[in-house]
Amino acid sequence: MATEVKSLNEECGIFGVWNDPEAAKRTYFGLHSLQHRGQEGAGIVVRQENGQLLGHKGMGLLADVFSRPEALDTLVGTSAIGHVRYGTAGSHGIENIQPLLFHYLDGDVAMAHNGNLTNAVSSRRVLEKSGATFQSNSDTEVLMHLIQRQKEATFVERLKASLNQIKGGFAYLILTKDALYAALDPNGFRPLSIGQLENGSFVVASETCALDVVGARFVQDVKPGQLVQIDDNGMSITNYTNQTQLAVCSMEYIYFARPDSNIYGVNVHLARQRMGYQLAKENPIDVDIVVGVPNSSLSAASGVALALNVPNEMGLIKNQYSSRTFIQPTQELREQGVKMKLSALKAVVDGKNVALVDDSIVRGTTSKYIVKMLKTAGAKSVHLMISSPPLKYPCFYGIDIEHTRELMAANHSVEEMRAMIGADSLHFLSLPGLIKAIDLKHNAPNEGLCVAYFDGNYPTPLYDYAADFEAPKTADERVLSATVEMEEV
Amino acid sequence: MATEVKSLNEECGIFGVWNDPEAAKRTYFGLHSLQHRGQEGAGIVVRQENGQLLGHKGMGLLADVFSRPEALDTLVGTSAIGHVRYGTAGSHGIENIQPLLFHYLDGDVAMAHNGNLTNAVSSRRVLEKSGATFQSNSDTEVLMHLIQRQKEATFVERLKASLNQIKGGFAYLILTKDALYAALDPNGFRPLSIGQLENGSFVVASETCALDVVGARFVQDVKPGQLVQIDDNGMSITNYTNQTQLAVCSMEYIYFARPDSNIYGVNVHLARQRMGYQLAKENPIDVDIVVGVPNSSLSAASGVALALNVPNEMGLIKNQYSSRTFIQPTQELREQGVKMKLSALKAVVDGKNVALVDDSIVRGTTSKYIVKMLKTAGAKSVHLMISSPPLKYPCFYGIDIEHTRELMAANHSVEEMRAMIGADSLHFLSLPGLIKAIDLKHNAPNEGLCVAYFDGNYPTPLYDYAADFEAPKTADERVLSATVEMEEV
Amino acid sequence: MATEVKSLNEECGIFGVWNDPEAAKRTYFGLHSLQHRGQEGAGIVVRQENGQLLGHKGMGLLADVFSRPEALDTLVGTSAIGHVRYGTAGSHGIENIQPLLFHYLDGDVAMAHNGNLTNAVSSRRVLEKSGATFQSNSDTEVLMHLIQRQKEATFVERLKASLNQIKGGFAYLILTKDALYAALDPNGFRPLSIGQLENGSFVVASETCALDVVGARFVQDVKPGQLVQIDDNGMSITNYTNQTQLAVCSMEYIYFARPDSNIYGVNVHLARQRMGYQLAKENPIDVDIVVGVPNSSLSAASGVALALNVPNEMGLIKNQYSSRTFIQPTQELREQGVKMKLSALKAVVDGKNVALVDDSIVRGTTSKYIVKMLKTAGAKSVHLMISSPPLKYPCFYGIDIEHTRELMAANHSVEEMRAMIGADSLHFLSLPGLIKAIDLKHNAPNEGLCVAYFDGNYPTPLYDYAADFEAPKTADERVLSATVEMEEV
Amino acid sequence: MATEVKSLNEECGIFGVWNDPEAAKRTYFGLHSLQHRGQEGAGIVVRQENGQLLGHKGMGLLADVFSRPEALDTLVGTSAIGHVRYGTAGSHGIENIQPLLFHYLDGDVAMAHNGNLTNAVSSRRVLEKSGATFQSNSDTEVLMHLIQRQKEATFVERLKASLNQIKGGFAYLILTKDALYAALDPNGFRPLSIGQLENGSFVVASETCALDVVGARFVQDVKPGQLVQIDDNGMSITNYTNQTQLAVCSMEYIYFARPDSNIYGVNVHLARQRMGYQLAKENPIDVDIVVGVPNSSLSAASGVALALNVPNEMGLIKNQYSSRTFIQPTQELREQGVKMKLSALKAVVDGKNVALVDDSIVRGTTSKYIVKMLKTAGAKSVHLMISSPPLKYPCFYGIDIEHTRELMAANHSVEEMRAMIGADSLHFLSLPGLIKAIDLKHNAPNEGLCVAYFDGNYPTPLYDYAADFEAPKTADERVLSATVEMEEV
Repeated sequence: MATEVKSLNEECGIFGVWNDPEAAKRTYFGLHSLQHRGQEGAGIVVRQENGQLLGHKGMGLLADVFSRPEALDTLVGTSAIGHVRYGTAGSHGIENIQPLLFHYLDGDVAMAHNGNLTNAVSSRRVLEKSGATFQSNSDTEVLMHLIQRQKEATFVERLKASLNQIKGGFAYLILTKDALYAALDPNGFRPLSIGQLENGSFVVASETCALDVVGARFVQDVKPGQLVQIDDNGMSITNYTNQTQLAVCSMEYIYFARPDSNIYGVNVHLARQRMGYQLAKENPIDVDIVVGVPNSSLSAASGVALALNVPNEMGLIKNQYSSRTFIQPTQELREQGVKMKLSALKAVVDGKNVALVDDSIVRGTTSKYIVKMLKTAGAKSVHLMISSPPLKYPCFYGIDIEHTRELMAANHSVEEMRAMIGADSLHFLSLPGLIKAIDLKHNAPNEGLCVAYFDGNYPTPLYDYAADFEAPKTADERVLSATVEMEEV
Repeated sequence: MATEVKSLNEECGIFGVWNDPEAAKRTYFGLHSLQHRGQEGAGIVVRQENGQLLGHKGMGLLADVFSRPEALDTLVGTSAIGHVRYGTAGSHGIENIQPLLFHYLDGDVAMAHNGNLTNAVSSRRVLEKSGATFQSNSDTEVLMHLIQRQKEATFVERLKASLNQIKGGFAYLILTKDALYAALDPNGFRPLSIGQLENGSFVVASETCALDVVGARFVQDVKPGQLVQIDDNGMSITNYTNQTQLAVCSMEYIYFARPDSNIYGVNVHLARQRMGYQLAKENPIDVDIVVGVPNSSLSAASGVALALNVPNEMGLIKNQYSSRTFIQPTQELREQGVKMKLSALKAVVDGKNVALVDDSIVRGTTSKYIVKMLKTAGAKSVHLMISSPPLKYPCFYGIDIEHTRELMAANHSVEEMRAMIGADSLHFLSLPGLIKAIDLKHNAPNEGLCVAYFDGNYPTPLYDYAADFEAPKTADERVLSATVEMEEV
Repeated sequence: MATEVKSLNEECGIFGVWNDPEAAKRTYFGLHSLQHRGQEGAGIVVRQENGQLLGHKGMGLLADVFSRPEALDTLVGTSAIGHVRYGTAGSHGIENIQPLLFHYLDGDVAMAHNGNLTNAVSSRRVLEKSGATFQSNSDTEVLMHLIQRQKEATFVERLKASLNQIKGGFAYLILTKDALYAALDPNGFRPLSIGQLENGSFVVASETCALDVVGARFVQDVKPGQLVQIDDNGMSITNYTNQTQLAVCSMEYIYFARPDSNIYGVNVHLARQRMGYQLAKENPIDVDIVVGVPNSSLSAASGVALALNVPNEMGLIKNQYSSRTFIQPTQELREQGVKMKLSALKAVVDGKNVALVDDSIVRGTTSKYIVKMLKTAGAKSVHLMISSPPLKYPCFYGIDIEHTRELMAANHSVEEMRAMIGADSLHFLSLPGLIKAIDLKHNAPNEGLCVAYFDGNYPTPLYDYAADFEAPKTADERVLSATVEMEEV
Repeated sequence: MATEVKSLNEECGIFGVWNDPEAAKRTYFGLHSLQHRGQEGAGIVVRQENGQLLGHKGMGLLADVFSRPEALDTLVGTSAIGHVRYGTAGSHGIENIQPLLFHYLDGDVAMAHNGNLTNAVSSRRVLEKSGATFQSNSDTEVLMHLIQRQKEATFVERLKASLNQIKGGFAYLILTKDALYAALDPNGFRPLSIGQLENGSFVVASETCALDVVGARFVQDVKPGQLVQIDDNGMSITNYTNQTQLAVCSMEYIYFARPDSNIYGVNVHLARQRMGYQLAKENPIDVDIVVGVPNSSLSAASGVALALNVPNEMGLIKNQYSSRTFIQPTQELREQGVKMKLSALKAVVDGKNVALVDDSIVRGTTSKYIVKMLKTAGAKSVHLMISSPPLKYPCFYGIDIEHTRELMAANHSVEEMRAMIGADSLHFLSLPGLIKAIDLKHNAPNEGLCVAYFDGNYPTPLYDYAADFEAPKTADERVLSATVEMEEV
């Protein structure tokens, strides 16, 4: 039960703008640059001139949801928020696509959320007992019901009180007829940045790459515990809590964010390059060439090549049209189907000892396949180098990492993993090496990073997940859980 | 404000079935026969085997919403409810399409509603103050929030308590993982009938025509104040209130229901035929032929012809494909555009004195156009005979009758109307004649009929509409309100 | 083989306009009123300002093909032709949807066709041997290839020479950069009428109802053997042959055309009414009420009622939304599925002796079902009255009548038919009665009507079908052919 | 006129398979890997079991054309050909999407074509005079009409005779009920390769990457002047002409083909890397980093970096979802719209002297924009290095290079170009350097390459284009042509 609720809002991108004549289009372009954060659904809500909110949302890529020009053209208004979403099996239903829209006689409210609340289920149980009615399975909605139950006089006060009642990782955008609000959790698990357009309007986005795309100047990152209010008087920032401690998600740096984004001032591409460099320094193996898995591991591969002082070669090609296909391969055509996404470049790898660089290993099936692909293409040996430590623990703050039972590194030794994948050797970046490479330098544990996926030390209590997490994993459970997963590629 | 909320659920059709292997398809076929009750949106929710509810809904005709077979195929389950809806301008947004779906940790609830609550706005205001959050602008949703706030131990008890708190006209279908509920308001304004399939399963539908189409035997009408519960133990019927008095909507008989439906045992076609007969008896005009406006007024026309003892001729043809067109005529082509729906049959009407029979006059623009069409086709004279009394007052119980200010008969004498429409004479059925023609014979005012649209005597307090209704209509208001309406044809 | 080619262009509607600023929309509205002539595909081609032709076509109703407004908006030009088509199994493929578009360096040509060529296969064989390449399976295309092979100097001369080489029933609209042409076969099997808009532009349409809808005044019917040319100099009419003899399809009057159309000056509705009258005069049965099958047999029913002097009652209701449904009933739901289209009105027929009026019997399955439906609704007896003679022979000129082997009347006596259908009695209009009722009064066999479906006397040689038609029908063939047909309802 | 016909078939990908139970899906996967060769339309035709051909085609990406699973599921058959197409303005109309399908009484023929015929217009003129009727504006169709007019006894003989009558660059796939044919022009301008599946079936594809993806082993390249016939007896290869001389399109190596494809044994990625290396050796500039324009110029950039011995950095990011967007930026949002595709990585380029590597300059607007983007991101200087010689002449063999008048290098000196683009320096690869880098080593002019785009020496007569090409370009024409072009990015 807890797991189901948990999974609904993970891996998302959010964008908002206030007082911009092109609000809906601006939001569209911003979301387009955040499409890598979620591809299963998208939506935009605008504040119309009469103060009412109007939205359009649907399943699929942003471009599919807005494939008919009139869909965007009907969203007339000068302020908007939008959302791209990573959906999970079991969350059928348009009602879970964001932004969520709430109607009140005194004005509508829309919410877009990136993150995961760790007390969503228990909060929801309390809320339902007190009469709350939910339109979705999403934990996002808990915040709205909390706001509605506060006794404070103003919306902002009720919002602040409510933000103090939710736990976990969250970056919220909230649109009303009066203002655009942005709020970040007390640990700053998820990135959220403010920019300003040339016309003076403020925008808020999950990553700085969206600011660049819409022509906005970076103003500042939203900080842990902050509430940003943007309205016709401009922007004001306050703290809804002072109990904060930075623990930004290290997976954003490792594989999730776009290379041209900066998170807390650290460029993602350079951080990855340093991870690769550090990885190779810790594991100075002897190979002929370095090959990164495109596109996510190309930055790390360049760092590995630099440290090993061997050429960084394009040994794998990614089909740039692979983001869309509706045709499922039959059993006979399965292997060809997987090849739709990646191809090995025989002319590059044939006869070579290859350092294959990838950013992480989840269940190991993709790695196994790529190693086989390279060997079929003639690689003499394939040494798999992972630019992060072994993934052993789930994330409860908004990244969709598998259950412990499905994580290869949670269940096998490195040597077992190497054998299962079929690599000639297997190397991981150390945890200290990761922290050093990201180089966040914040005065906090792990320099301000959350690395719980690697060491199990979660920076907050787990609330509703505490019991789930402690439960012993028996061999039987492993068997039961291994059946219905899809391929990761 | 009140008006906006009011308009959202008007003119709808609902259908439900419990424990039928073909639940979604059965509901589809049932709704298909109720399509005349609403063409702007449709939806079906099924109870899946695991108890969770899953829905599909969309804008447009039922056949459009389910144009991809997989849409219906994914609705796997043995119980379902569905809804066809008449949408109004201003209610954009998929969130207002029904059935509405509410999620709770202990189980989902779905609701489909036909009617209009007269205390929706005030109830909503109270609910919102106590923390309620609304997913739609629909008054339907009020009931769910009331249920959620009751203190009784069981869902049925909470439902009954809530039904006693809502006012107006309503026929609700409610689906949970445990049962299908049907509830009717204390005046029985809207029709609702129970049927039984050959396999023993029960179905509930807005009109008996839907029972026939799905192969169900008529069991009984749901009576005012009744709550029907259908579950795996069969059907049980209780009263949530005994303060009832039948006031079934006379407009259902006049133009809204399908001719092959029976409402409280009175067949709609025969009732219309009697209205026409009575109309002609009250107004024994001298004409050559009778022509009914297809399709809704053909029954009445046959009654007029019988009483006048002149031929009932097919002088107007309705294009059977006119239910769908997405192309808006330009100003130049407007008249041709209107002709897409109706054509005059010159060979029939040329040189004739015609009694044109229609069921009602709302704003009069359609009537004016049809009279012109007949005269252009050669009719020597056109005598407009309306098989109901002049429409002077709005409906607050679920039929979308215009505001008083737009109702032609509320603002003009019969002679003024005749002149504006361009008819040679104009005749209405008297109110006693209407009651006599429907012949409901129930021991209640107007024999159990609501005829408030004609005499302004509403059978219940108007609650939130009371102020609105009393407000004097000034000439200025008339001007303001006459601008944005679409053509009725 | 012959049969396959034959079937592709049957039952169609065509519309064309020259020099009208609203050409595409005008054609859309014209086709909309001809939708009853074909529902499986539609298309419009316009002549763009640069002289090139541009088209849009697709499967389904006109409103579906043009459901995105931009589809019509891109068809910019002042002249256009359009087509609605009755498709048959086996003719998958957008390439068979009309208008067909042919590209030449010196200018495009588009063709829309209603009819069937009896020498299409043999002509095609000769053409292919001489190098012709076909883009479709349609016989329509033969004319274009013939034109292209003529040696005459002008397009008109080549067209006339080609029209003399094709046989059968045809009404062609041809659009080039220079003119709109309309041509009718030497027997005038298919109707085709010319109208004129208020702006002086000429339109041509399959039926006069389309002229009314687009606001055009009726000018004249195209006569057998005529070629009409409409261009910037106005309209000119010539004869491409003088070997003509009117034999207009009697099935157009019986069931195919719209009641408000006039064909050769005879109104279709009145002709049907006279058919019913004559039918009842020939068969003065004793019944309580007359019930027509909606909508096609309502005119005939009124005539029957008049002659029998009993009430014409609305005992069957047609669902006005039945023109569209994509959901196929399962075996279990088949009967409910059929009920989606027609419902019996119990209140009308219960306890009555009913004269059920239908326009024709093809395979008899629909009749059987309707009789059962009325009896289930309580009819004491059902007497089936058919307002045309028994259908025994196929049509080779453009109406999709079944093969002889599927025609009930070709294989059974009237008494056998009655028993199979389950009616209490069965009556057909006589052939002389039909001719008298239509009352065309043309100085030609059968007063200018083609009645070959009833007597087998085809007014022309059958060319490619001659062998097919003579072939004896064995019992084995009957069995083989009875398998794949769909229900007629 | 010539130009219009010319443009229709340029830049395409083709795929065919014979005797494979998964023919349609195999073709889908093959085409998916060739999507980079054309994104504006796609289609697949299968040979059904009864020998008839059935196709599905549409506008947009392959995944869009086949977005409804039933589209592919209806293509049941064991042999198929498919096509992805680069469409050009002016070629609206589904009739130009391939494969083209031709119907004959004795069997259908389908054709898919990559290339451009230089005598299409004159051939078409002759064919039309002899009676030919064209279904498209495509030059592809000329071959079918030629075949149909030959007198030889067999299809193969007629095909061979016809292949000798068409001129230019072409790779044809032809499907009949009896065989799959592949034919290449006498100069082998376009690549075409044969592979074999594990089940023994043969496939033919534009590039070897498609063989890899569908699991086929490379068998051989189709050679100039060859006709390949694949049928139930296996594969046979003959020459339809011996007048051949290899002149494979150098632009395939430079930017068009996928890096993992091999053309005549030369890997595309390695060839590009050598181009970059040679470019830098010819122009040993002094910079801090090398940045390639993703994705097409990353191979060349790695060669440049190697030769210059400076780091090859990821200074530009390409949005992997940019292949689809239906939203056109407004004037105000234009610059943001362009940014949807590429972003500069400030952290990499800030303060650096950058060698920006691109594969070619067409009109120069993209280059200008990227240079500006890098400078805005802080680059101290940007030196644009083009890994091919200046593009001065159009291609007449199937690549869509602009008219001479739009080619920047055809109208400006290198220094003028540098100034217009805003680069600090501008360098091109020399023509001898290009030939050396590709290293085809064939015993023919330019080692077997066509390099006419650079030196104007076309390896064949230009036929219909001869006059066009000689025409002087006046300044006025330049102005006229510069108005309506879209951005290249």
